[in-house]
Amino acid sequence: MDRLSLNQITTRSWSLPEAVRGCAESGVGWIGLWRDKVAEVGVAEAARLVADHGLRVSSLCRGGFFTGVNPDGSPVDGLGETRRAIEEAAQLGAEVLVLVVGGIAGGDLAGSRQRVADAVAELVPMALDHGVRLGLEPLHPIQCAERSVLSTLDQAMAMADPFPASAVGVVVDEFHVWWDPKLESSIAAAAGRIAGFHVCDQQVPLTDPLLGRALPGAGPIEHRRLRACVEAAGYHGPIEVEVFNAELWRRPGAEVLAEVISAYARHVAA
Amino acid sequence: MDRLSLNQITTRSWSLPEAVRGCAESGVGWIGLWRDKVAEVGVAEAARLVADHGLRVSSLCRGGFFTGVNPDGSPVDGLGETRRAIEEAAQLGAEVLVLVVGGIAGGDLAGSRQRVADAVAELVPMALDHGVRLGLEPLHPIQCAERSVLSTLDQAMAMADPFPASAVGVVVDEFHVWWDPKLESSIAAAAGRIAGFHVCDQQVPLTDPLLGRALPGAGPIEHRRLRACVEAAGYHGPIEVEVFNAELWRRPGAEVLAEVISAYARHVAA
Repeated sequence: MDRLSLNQITTRSWSLPEAVRGCAESGVGWIGLWRDKVAEVGVAEAARLVADHGLRVSSLCRGGFFTGVNPDGSPVDGLGETRRAIEEAAQLGAEVLVLVVGGIAGGDLAGSRQRVADAVAELVPMALDHGVRLGLEPLHPIQCAERSVLSTLDQAMAMADPFPASAVGVVVDEFHVWWDPKLESSIAAAAGRIAGFHVCDQQVPLTDPLLGRALPGAGPIEHRRLRACVEAAGYHGPIEVEVFNAELWRRPGAEVLAEVISAYARHVAA
Repeated sequence: MDRLSLNQITTRSWSLPEAVRGCAESGVGWIGLWRDKVAEVGVAEAARLVADHGLRVSSLCRGGFFTGVNPDGSPVDGLGETRRAIEEAAQLGAEVLVLVVGGIAGGDLAGSRQRVADAVAELVPMALDHGVRLGLEPLHPIQCAERSVLSTLDQAMAMADPFPASAVGVVVDEFHVWWDPKLESSIAAAAGRIAGFHVCDQQVPLTDPLLGRALPGAGPIEHRRLRACVEAAGYHGPIEVEVFNAELWRRPGAEVLAEVISAYARHVAA
């Protein structure tokens, strides 16, 4: 249980102070923070709350959107936002800044991917300077158009390859990669680069491509098998339970966290 | 325009006789048939209608479900159904039987994939005997759990590899594979195995993982680039427009077919 981390999106009804207190009271030692929740209290206060409750920050979500468009098509300065996020991650003591790289800009998939690679190259010196690792997270192919032209772990590894592993890692989120027929060998090839392991399940039948996730154990994902893969690749860091689920988000955070702990113990932990 | 084929699912409101007549009246020389529509008139009558209207059958949809479970979890004799589908394809003069291999059985992804490989091996002699090519169609990863543990073109090629190309080919459907960062090299590597090319687009924003498709031109897929890839790999056969879209399905077939022809001319054809 000492590796369990609550990704804050899972208990979305909770503010950051509530989530931090909830983790401390439940014996959860790690938390994955989101920038919008951090902004509600301010970075300094968020860092103080985390420290005062004896928690560690497994990651900050998120930087990215380097292709310059939000999921709704509106423009965004992804590079500028990510620079601010790197500073926040450093202040929060988050070792990893999760990157959602952005969807297709201008109808040009190859060009959009190149923009992402260029942005990562530009951010590496700042990341090294701040001691924050950039975590390239491939997102499920269903989100390629709107959120992430980075779709597989192999692709993330190829993008990370030119840079020091301390500057650019890859985040393995089960929902996004579990279906990949090459996953086992891809994880093995990611040894030394794995910057995070996020667990959840996929709803079956799946009706909502973004929110159709569930707590571990409720779907087809073989959590212990995938955990064994990332461990064989040398990753022994925190394991975030990160669930996008509208029904879960409507419920009290304490109830949800109790179920997170139970699902993690039954389906993920050794 | 002589390569355009109407996949019958696109004009779902039409019966087979209506679809065949519609194609003939619009100068569309190919049609992709579905078994449920064929069954409504009988295989012999369907073959006669197709021939009388001077059409050719680009493919029959579909065999598969070798893992023994339907999308709703109910049991199915996929192997037996596919044997019947091979016979029907031969009677209809369809060169290709499209295979949707089936989702995860018993929570065992690796075992389910093996069941698919075993079923293909078992069917190859019958396929050769009937002059029907089995078309392994990788489905979008979002459908891995429910419909297809075959998710990428590379994976389909690996599965086809042990068998003669005349017995087992691969079907490239844009909706399912367009996001793949390896797609261009995967298509090139599929030279000699490509048994079909299906075009459509993806809706953005995407709300329905199964029906969120659209006519070519309405989404992010670069149809001419992908057509150039399959042609460079030696495929010059029919191009099916195959769109799963509930709104389209409610409209009169003639209207839909007119839009299919227009979209194909504007976004796909040379």
